[in-house]
Amino acid sequence: MSLETEIKTDELLEKAAAAKAASVVLAQLSTDTKNRALEAIARAIRAHEAQILAANANDCAIAPPRIEIDRLRLTHERVAGMARDVEAVAKLADPVGEVFDATSRPNGLKVSKRRVPFGVVGVVYEARPNVTCDVAALCLKTGNAVVLRGGKEALESNRAIVAAIHQGLAGSDVPESAVQLIASTDRALVQRMLKLRQYLDVIVPRGGQGLIQATIENATVPVIETGAGVCHTYVDASADVEMATRIVHNAKVRRPTICNALDTVLVHRSIAATWLPAIAASWAHVPVEMRADPEAARLLASAGVACTPATAEDWGKEYLSLVAAVKVVGSLDEAIDHIRMFGSGHSEAIVTSDDKAASRFLNEVDAAAVFVNASTQFTDGAEFGLGAEVGISTQKLHARGPMGLRELTTYKWVIEGTGQTRP
Amino acid sequence: MSLETEIKTDELLEKAAAAKAASVVLAQLSTDTKNRALEAIARAIRAHEAQILAANANDCAIAPPRIEIDRLRLTHERVAGMARDVEAVAKLADPVGEVFDATSRPNGLKVSKRRVPFGVVGVVYEARPNVTCDVAALCLKTGNAVVLRGGKEALESNRAIVAAIHQGLAGSDVPESAVQLIASTDRALVQRMLKLRQYLDVIVPRGGQGLIQATIENATVPVIETGAGVCHTYVDASADVEMATRIVHNAKVRRPTICNALDTVLVHRSIAATWLPAIAASWAHVPVEMRADPEAARLLASAGVACTPATAEDWGKEYLSLVAAVKVVGSLDEAIDHIRMFGSGHSEAIVTSDDKAASRFLNEVDAAAVFVNASTQFTDGAEFGLGAEVGISTQKLHARGPMGLRELTTYKWVIEGTGQTRP
Repeated sequence: MSLETEIKTDELLEKAAAAKAASVVLAQLSTDTKNRALEAIARAIRAHEAQILAANANDCAIAPPRIEIDRLRLTHERVAGMARDVEAVAKLADPVGEVFDATSRPNGLKVSKRRVPFGVVGVVYEARPNVTCDVAALCLKTGNAVVLRGGKEALESNRAIVAAIHQGLAGSDVPESAVQLIASTDRALVQRMLKLRQYLDVIVPRGGQGLIQATIENATVPVIETGAGVCHTYVDASADVEMATRIVHNAKVRRPTICNALDTVLVHRSIAATWLPAIAASWAHVPVEMRADPEAARLLASAGVACTPATAEDWGKEYLSLVAAVKVVGSLDEAIDHIRMFGSGHSEAIVTSDDKAASRFLNEVDAAAVFVNASTQFTDGAEFGLGAEVGISTQKLHARGPMGLRELTTYKWVIEGTGQTRP
Repeated sequence: MSLETEIKTDELLEKAAAAKAASVVLAQLSTDTKNRALEAIARAIRAHEAQILAANANDCAIAPPRIEIDRLRLTHERVAGMARDVEAVAKLADPVGEVFDATSRPNGLKVSKRRVPFGVVGVVYEARPNVTCDVAALCLKTGNAVVLRGGKEALESNRAIVAAIHQGLAGSDVPESAVQLIASTDRALVQRMLKLRQYLDVIVPRGGQGLIQATIENATVPVIETGAGVCHTYVDASADVEMATRIVHNAKVRRPTICNALDTVLVHRSIAATWLPAIAASWAHVPVEMRADPEAARLLASAGVACTPATAEDWGKEYLSLVAAVKVVGSLDEAIDHIRMFGSGHSEAIVTSDDKAASRFLNEVDAAAVFVNASTQFTDGAEFGLGAEVGISTQKLHARGPMGLRELTTYKWVIEGTGQTRP
């Protein structure tokens, strides 16, 4: 091990150990105490705006070309937005302390579960400084300490933001050591962080597919993963043509760059000749490029609409842009089979007026969110009523789909006896 | 890749793909259909007793000395017990299909969560043939297909048991392919199985610490881990001496070889001179070897009781035998700190008549199960009212402590609209 790596290893161990120690205190804090600390952080973010923007300007000035500068750059509005988001988290209900599944056993033992923080959450993310403030607030609200490791291109911005957070915490009952920023930019350190089971209770990767894949492949700390969304909408034989057009248009066009945006539309043969020209007309104004299978292409051509022929790569592709694959299917079964083969388990929708088809679709499609007669763009913590969103999970363990504050907690079993021994 | 590895790789991929296909059918089956299949399996296990025992005799005859033959060997009673256990699983409530967290959003969307199977569960275990039948029943009940990979020393037993399971399923509506046994004994195959994310939704290791550690280190499929229990009981200053003696005796002696058995007892200084001779007298009949810190050793010597001096290795050690570490502490804080340092997050208890001490212990000790005035040996699915127990989780993600059938499921978000699009 080189001396440099050794020093950086020490930074990780020291900061993770300090976070663990802080987590013991954090777990016992009242909701009020945590909320006051969050409000103090919001004020400190505003008070440090000049320092944060200056640090960010330095980061932007030396950012390599591969970095999405728009996501790295902070402005007055963005810093104000960060502060407002922290205040919004303060206003949410605190899941910690909830008692559930309580029972009395025949031997008199009172058994229940109590919701508690994880302890220490590790967050690995890219050059997006707003994530620093966002996840720190979510973790503190749920009584978790946090070890942050952001993209090195945002290091100065992150330092300035965490300095503000620490200044906010300094006047509160939350220990400053509850929020730790790893300053080393050594990649070997991330590898070690992913395996730091003695200090980290869970790892949350926030970012693109490469980051998430690397986390899954290397972590021995349990991971809450988020991931790609290859989203289908199936327009059933019985669909209302106008409703189907509105929903599919929205699912693609509202925000094409997010994970719940439509990628492929499947349409039943019996309605395709009517509906395909309708959606093509709706999309023509945007415009959306349609990649059509041969049958859809023929029907579109008959209606005088040009499209691109779909290739094998179009099925199961997440476009994140104004492109949609289009395919004609002969039945609900064919639609479900196509989704099973090419979906990523994120968000899938059917447009139908047939209750039986709706019910089969909801039952048989295996995805985090299944929709009837609504746009897949609704897959979102706020839209589902969760308040803050920690992310959208595409795994099945612990949490699936939009994750709220509750998903940043675990539980302990509490057993109260009067001297019981087990026979 | 050698030809042999290639062939074995194919076995894994073929069987895992078949399990995935079966999981689609399984997820839609009614509780009645699954229960009838389980009852048919129980009958088939009884009908195949001779074949199962003959296969097991072959396994036992060639088992290497390192294998715990008592755990490998089947008898008439054990086979009958396996069949009874399958019937017991049939009688439990089915968690699949439960609807929860249902809300209506301001835009009219009806949003709820629906409990669904994981899909395919991979189980990696040691040379314990009863696990084969046990986990297959738990998985089928929860609508999951299962890929089993047991210790190679039990292969013939496992083949015979799975043959019986398949024969039971043959007359049912559950596809036989829902239960897959990997016959290859190549260790490289286990490594690949742990990374088979396209087919396996979760991996459950069942066995000793080495197996679990290897699973955690190598799996990219999400893991539900179970683990070691280093369990403490703290006898508070205010404890009832007789109750404390009964509870601590039971926690150590009832079954010393299981993970919830007491390893270390901590006793408050103010009660130690009275209580230590009492527990020593109670344990003397067993006998339990006491490994005492200097202060406890002095107090025991004054009462004429011999003990072994504790060494640094005794703190945090899981004995799984009739040995207990004993330590005098000066305060509740010292007890909690000791548990924080040396506990494994499994089961921890306090004996006290002081509500404030009880409350602090329950709040501040970070473990899957925290007890007041009861034996840690109660940490068990049946004792907590779960019916069947899938295992005892020592991780914080998804499930903590005893896991019931519900912990073998996940959920999907179901969103029912009337044409809503997102603004």
